[in-house]
Order: sequence, then C-alpha cells, then structure tokens
Amino acid sequence: MNSGLSLPARVSINDVVVRDGFQSEPNFIATESKIALIDRLSATGLSKIEITSFVSPKAVPNLRDATEVCRGVIRRPNVTFVALVPNLLGCERAMVCEINEINLVMSISESHNLANMRMSTMQSLKQFADIMALTRSTRTQINGTVATAFGCPFEGVQDQMRVLATVQAYLDLGMTSITLADTTGMANPQQVRRMADAFLARFPQVPLTMHFHNTRGMGLANVLAAATSGVRSFDGSLGGLGGCPYAPGATGNICTEDTVHMLHACGVATGIDLDLLLGVARDLSGIVGHEVPGQLVRSGKSTDLHPCPASVIALRAAQAAI
Amino acid sequence: MNSGLSLPARVSINDVVVRDGFQSEPNFIATESKIALIDRLSATGLSKIEITSFVSPKAVPNLRDATEVCRGVIRRPNVTFVALVPNLLGCERAMVCEINEINLVMSISESHNLANMRMSTMQSLKQFADIMALTRSTRTQINGTVATAFGCPFEGVQDQMRVLATVQAYLDLGMTSITLADTTGMANPQQVRRMADAFLARFPQVPLTMHFHNTRGMGLANVLAAATSGVRSFDGSLGGLGGCPYAPGATGNICTEDTVHMLHACGVATGIDLDLLLGVARDLSGIVGHEVPGQLVRSGKSTDLHPCPASVIALRAAQAAI
Repeated sequence: MNSGLSLPARVSINDVVVRDGFQSEPNFIATESKIALIDRLSATGLSKIEITSFVSPKAVPNLRDATEVCRGVIRRPNVTFVALVPNLLGCERAMVCEINEINLVMSISESHNLANMRMSTMQSLKQFADIMALTRSTRTQINGTVATAFGCPFEGVQDQMRVLATVQAYLDLGMTSITLADTTGMANPQQVRRMADAFLARFPQVPLTMHFHNTRGMGLANVLAAATSGVRSFDGSLGGLGGCPYAPGATGNICTEDTVHMLHACGVATGIDLDLLLGVARDLSGIVGHEVPGQLVRSGKSTDLHPCPASVIALRAAQAAI
Repeated sequence: MNSGLSLPARVSINDVVVRDGFQSEPNFIATESKIALIDRLSATGLSKIEITSFVSPKAVPNLRDATEVCRGVIRRPNVTFVALVPNLLGCERAMVCEINEINLVMSISESHNLANMRMSTMQSLKQFADIMALTRSTRTQINGTVATAFGCPFEGVQDQMRVLATVQAYLDLGMTSITLADTTGMANPQQVRRMADAFLARFPQVPLTMHFHNTRGMGLANVLAAATSGVRSFDGSLGGLGGCPYAPGATGNICTEDTVHMLHACGVATGIDLDLLLGVARDLSGIVGHEVPGQLVRSGKSTDLHPCPASVIALRAAQAAI
C-alpha cells in the first residue's frame, strides 16, 4: 500500500498572530495581553513566533509597543522569537531588544511595495544591504520575505522567474532563510506547487517558509500543495486572524490550529501540543473582542466523538429484542 | 517544466444547496424561491443539481415541498436533476416527478444510519434492493451514496475496506455511480487521497463523486487531494450552506463558487460560468436571511484587481521627477 500523498514527516509552524493578526485589528491590544498570549503560545511547541513589527508607530499604531513586547516575553531556548523589520531604523530598534530573528519584508510588486513600505523595491534592497552590514557580526538570524509573491492586488500575478531572482538577490545579501508570502490571498494550489518545485530545485539548501492567507478559501489547500512539493515550514495565525485591506470582510491568514490539526490528521508531525494550542485559541476571541475565523474552536478535532443519541440506543435495544 | 500537481483536465460539479443547505436552515425557504434559485443555477453550466429530498415531511419539514419543486423547475437537457431518496416510499414519490437521478443514501456507520435514517444498514440495503427493482425498467439513474465514509461523529474513522465492500454491495444491486460522503466534515486530505486511490484502483470504470464539508477548514484541501488521485466529480453547496448538528456553529458543505474558483485557478475546467454563479451566490444571503460561509462573495476572484492607491501614484510621480 504505497498509495497516498507524499508529505514531509515533519513541518515547523511560525505563528504570526501578534504581528500580522493584531496589526489589522480595529483596536489596540494591551501590551500585557500580547505578552501573556506569546508566553502561552511559546509553551505549545511552536518553533517560531513572530511577536511584533518594528515599523513606524504612526503607520501601525497597534504595534507601537514593539520594544515592550520584546522585553516582556519569556525567552524559551527552543523557540525562535522573530520581529518584522521594514527598514534600518526598525533593525536598530530590534537589535537593542536582542530579538533572535529579523524578518525583512519587501513586496515584489513595485506598486504594492510603494503602498505598503512607501519605498521602491530598489530602495528596500538598499535598506536590506545596510541592515545586513549592521547585523553581520551578531548572532541575529535574517529571514527575507518576498511579499505578494503569488499576486499583487494592483498588478495581478507575479512572474515566477522574477520571484526566484529576488530570492537570489536576498541570498546574495547574506540572508539565510526565505519566506514566500501570499500577502493578499491570491495564490492557488497549482501555482504554489509550481513555485515550490521551482524554488526547491534551484535552492535545495535554503530553508523555505510559505505564508498563506485564506482570503478565497484556498489556504489549507495551498499548504497541502506546498507540502507535497517538500515545503516544511509554514506561517499561521492563531484563530485565523489577519487580513487584507483590499478584501474587506474576507477571512485572514491561515489559522494556526486548523493547519496543525490538518497536518497531524495527515500524519505529519509538528511538535505542537494541539490541545494546548486549542486552549489558547479558545481565549482569543475574548482578547480581541469578536469572533475569529478559525474553524476548530467551533467544531473540535475530527477525533472528538459525540455520544450516541438516546434514540439510537433505543432503536438498537428494540432491534436486539426482535 | 513538468513540475506541478497532476490534476484532471476537467471535473464536474453537483450543487446540493437546495437539498443539503436548505434542509438545515432554521426557516422554511419558500417553494418559489427554491424553484427560482434552481432555475438560475441550472443556467450556469453545473452538470447536476440535487434539488430536493423525498424524505418524510415530518423528519425534514424544510423539504416538504419536494414534489412541487420537482414539477416547478425548468428541465434543461444538459443538467441532471437529482433527488435524494431514503426509502421505497420516497422513491415512488420521486418517480412520479420524473426525476433524472435518484441518490440513495446510507451511512456506513451503523449508529449514524440509525440516527439519520432510523434503520439498520441491513434494512437500508433491503430498501435499496426494492428500489432497484422498482426503477429497473425506467430511465432513472441511480447513484449510491456512502455517508460517513470518512468518519462517524459517534464511532470515529470508518475502515476503508468496509467502505469499499459497501460500494461493491451497491454495484451488485445495480447502482451505476457512487458518492463517498464526508457527512460531518471529519476527512483529512491524506485519508481522502488513500480512499480515492483505493477506489479508483478497484473500480476504475465506476463514476465517483466526493462530497465534503468544510467543518474543520479542510474542505478544499480534500478536493485537491481527491483531484490529484483522479477524482473528477464533486458535490458543493452554493455559499457553503449546510452543516451538521454535531458541530453547532461550524461551517457547512464546501462552497460551490469557492471550489469552482480554485479549480479554474488551477487550470481545471468545470464548464461553469463562474461570474454567473457568483451572481447567484451574492443573492443567497438575501434568500436565507443571514450571511453565508463562502469566501468568494466577500473577496472577489483572485483575478479581480484593485485600483492603485492615490498615494502610490503620487510616490511614483515624485520618483519619476527625481
């Protein structure tokens, strides 16, 4: 019986709810709530947590407490704590906090990078070079994210060869791992699989993470497609929080607990205690003050069975008596 | 470039919203609304529509107008109109209406069949034999559905060999096509792929449909997994309506328009005019009186681009002036 999907034995999950999720919440989440949530998440077996973004407090007021969050969380040695950094100033702030990993983000789409970072891609790459120089002698790991890698809401599908060329530019700058992000939920499974195949063929030694949104319902199908290609690391957001200003009302990032549940059900290990993670997820709607898109908090795991209805027990008894 | 997922060139979609969706709505949907909706759906290119169920009006009052619905809809020659039938009485009612296809349903889980059909599986199979005798000399097609094929909410995972043995029993009775249904949304992609591989290896000539729910967020991942195995027919429900009494608050069947969008994006043809289908889907929340779980009505298609923000145009102009 060698049938079935070919999937990795183990994948890693990076939760980004406190950054990508809380960033787009209507209300500021209290610093203590963020710290308490991160401390609970870091005890579940997650490999990485993106805990904040050192962006301008004016641009993203919800993450204006980046320094306090970084200083407040319990640092566990088996968890990598990540901060998103858009420019040199952000990098300087992140390094003061001794963050484990800096996530540099640039949209491959020129217009999306201008909209999101207020810089051309050339200007972003120049900032990245300065950041690499600043961090070279430290132990800070640098991950490079190619945002809008599967499509830009203004420009449409982005060329796969251009994406790979940008990855090469990141590696040439000295970045050691890469994230390909479907920033606004435009990717489809076939595109994801082809991108993953091409990436892994060209850069077999480079750790690759994929970052999906569930904007059009394809989030977990995209994870599956990437996993069949051999991708072994994914971003997720607790409760499926997150989203995109160009799809108002649409669902957000792929949901961490739904993703872990699917992977475990498929026989793929993550190292995460799903029950512990679900306990944290159940408290999330109380923290943000509204329902969250994740399914598992409502449905329970597929292994959670229900008691047989009384009518069935009565019918069985009647049949046994015949 | 031979990379990528191996997917069928074309798949068929059977929409079940008027049966599986409306059956579990809190309110009765007016007969004229059902008929108007079916008439719009049948013009979109859908291959099949399951338009009602000839169950006891006491058991499912929402579908008490089965006869009127069957008589009221426009019959288009390129669309197969299906009715679910649980027993001999239902079959007699369906045949009077000259329905194209009868869908016979039995849960492979004994306790779920007792709960849902109030019969043992042996009693269901006996009814099916009577129904086959009644329909033998007619042109009515008979599809057999194995419900809870991927798991029962009371008993858990069902054995793949038992599922295939039930399929064999259906074929021995003379049924000509089969649906494997994940009635309560417990299936995972690896299980689906293995089931599809096993089914297609044993019954390569038998038309197979898979019926998924998105209860735990894996609905479209399950479609993808089945499609990579060669499954070429899926049930979907407009707007993702439907659901399961054992997962209150959870989402329902996989959403027809989200499924078609994913398939088209992956290069798989369905014969469906997605824009026409989306137009129908946008009116569904008005018909049922509440929001529906489908994503595409909120997000739009991944090819729907947005105008570049004014800030980006200004930045571009400023850069060009340098």
